[in-house]
Amino acid sequence: MKKLKNPTACVIIIGNEILSGRTLDTNKQYLCKELTLNGIDVIEARVIKDNKKEIINTVNEVRKKYNYVFTTGGIGPTHDDITSISIANAFKVKLIKNKEALLILKKFYNLKNEKLNKARQKMALIPKGAELLHNPVTKAAGFRIKNVYVMAGIPKIMIAMFKKIIKKIKHGIPEISKTILINFPESCIAEDLEIIQKKFNNIEIGSYPFMNGKKKGVNVVLKGRNLNQIRSAEKEIKKIIKLL
Amino acid sequence: MKKLKNPTACVIIIGNEILSGRTLDTNKQYLCKELTLNGIDVIEARVIKDNKKEIINTVNEVRKKYNYVFTTGGIGPTHDDITSISIANAFKVKLIKNKEALLILKKFYNLKNEKLNKARQKMALIPKGAELLHNPVTKAAGFRIKNVYVMAGIPKIMIAMFKKIIKKIKHGIPEISKTILINFPESCIAEDLEIIQKKFNNIEIGSYPFMNGKKKGVNVVLKGRNLNQIRSAEKEIKKIIKLL
Repeated sequence: MKKLKNPTACVIIIGNEILSGRTLDTNKQYLCKELTLNGIDVIEARVIKDNKKEIINTVNEVRKKYNYVFTTGGIGPTHDDITSISIANAFKVKLIKNKEALLILKKFYNLKNEKLNKARQKMALIPKGAELLHNPVTKAAGFRIKNVYVMAGIPKIMIAMFKKIIKKIKHGIPEISKTILINFPESCIAEDLEIIQKKFNNIEIGSYPFMNGKKKGVNVVLKGRNLNQIRSAEKEIKKIIKLL
Repeated sequence: MKKLKNPTACVIIIGNEILSGRTLDTNKQYLCKELTLNGIDVIEARVIKDNKKEIINTVNEVRKKYNYVFTTGGIGPTHDDITSISIANAFKVKLIKNKEALLILKKFYNLKNEKLNKARQKMALIPKGAELLHNPVTKAAGFRIKNVYVMAGIPKIMIAMFKKIIKKIKHGIPEISKTILINFPESCIAEDLEIIQKKFNNIEIGSYPFMNGKKKGVNVVLKGRNLNQIRSAEKEIKKIIKLL
């Protein structure tokens, strides 16, 4: 299958609460969807523990493999927030009090008549050389160091940060996508689908079965850049459905 | 932090539809929760593409690192279901027509008066030497090969398969977990929490902030095997909350 080269990405969700099943992770889906819409191919996603070694090893592995790495989680004020120091270690740079980040926090807590206590000051510790990623919600910044974007874990904050990031980074060309809903088990169309995939080999045909209660069916998704092939494949699939 | 050694696990979600953000993955949370409840520590989770090389490399990497590997997705009848052949390749064994799997499918489709077409027969292709994982819902089996459990992607089927698996595998001792909901930002309690964590170093204190609309707060989760430490830490945290 011929493909133009889009930028690639890896999403890393950092958090024990995800791996224990306590929290349903929605950040991954949001990031995957938005990146895909902007022509950035998410090649893999990982969920790892709040553990220095795990964070360092994972980030150092994937930042070499992909154009972009996006992490969420672990940059808050508590003792179990260890993403920033881990990323600094991964890049072998110091974690320093970032003046700009500190100033933003000072202003924010001043306005609220609250103290910039030690825990809040911790959120101004940023790896040396990193660029701040502004947080319009609670002001504690994330940061970018080389191709690694380090964001908060709270979805509302992560989304606000990401909306600024996506404006700045290099996009690819998003693929055209067409979904055909079929109310039959996929095993009824699998053989025909394979023939159609072979015929239209510049597009990707995915078959995603579902069961909702007693309702069974499949979403066939046609993806690619060749609109003619997508349209032709769609026609052929619809012909098959009529014969079912 | 002293810990008894529980079995470890890695969850691998296989599917382009997850990485494009099309589908919200709920399998990961289900598996993480159930494994944790049974004292099996999920150390990491990965989401990878329906791509042979990715599947082979990932499975071969993690099966050496963890006691158990659980995969979901890609064992259906369509051309894009390539998990079984990839796992066979990873283990350097042949993918063969499994007689038992085929018989189960034959009976099932006979009863429904449907044909066991070529696509359906494909679901009886299982790596040589693998043990079948029965599927009470749609009958097409998953399989276990060494420490790798290969399950369907449709949540209802995956859950049915997993419920049988979990009865057979070695459990660990689940940790006791106590959640304290605090309706203040975590930065108000972070310093005290750190002191308490240092004092009770046989338990793990996690701080999980949330924002729901204008509601802000934090769930402090105490985890471990030492009930006395959990109770004492809980008392101290509740004292702090009263002073906020």
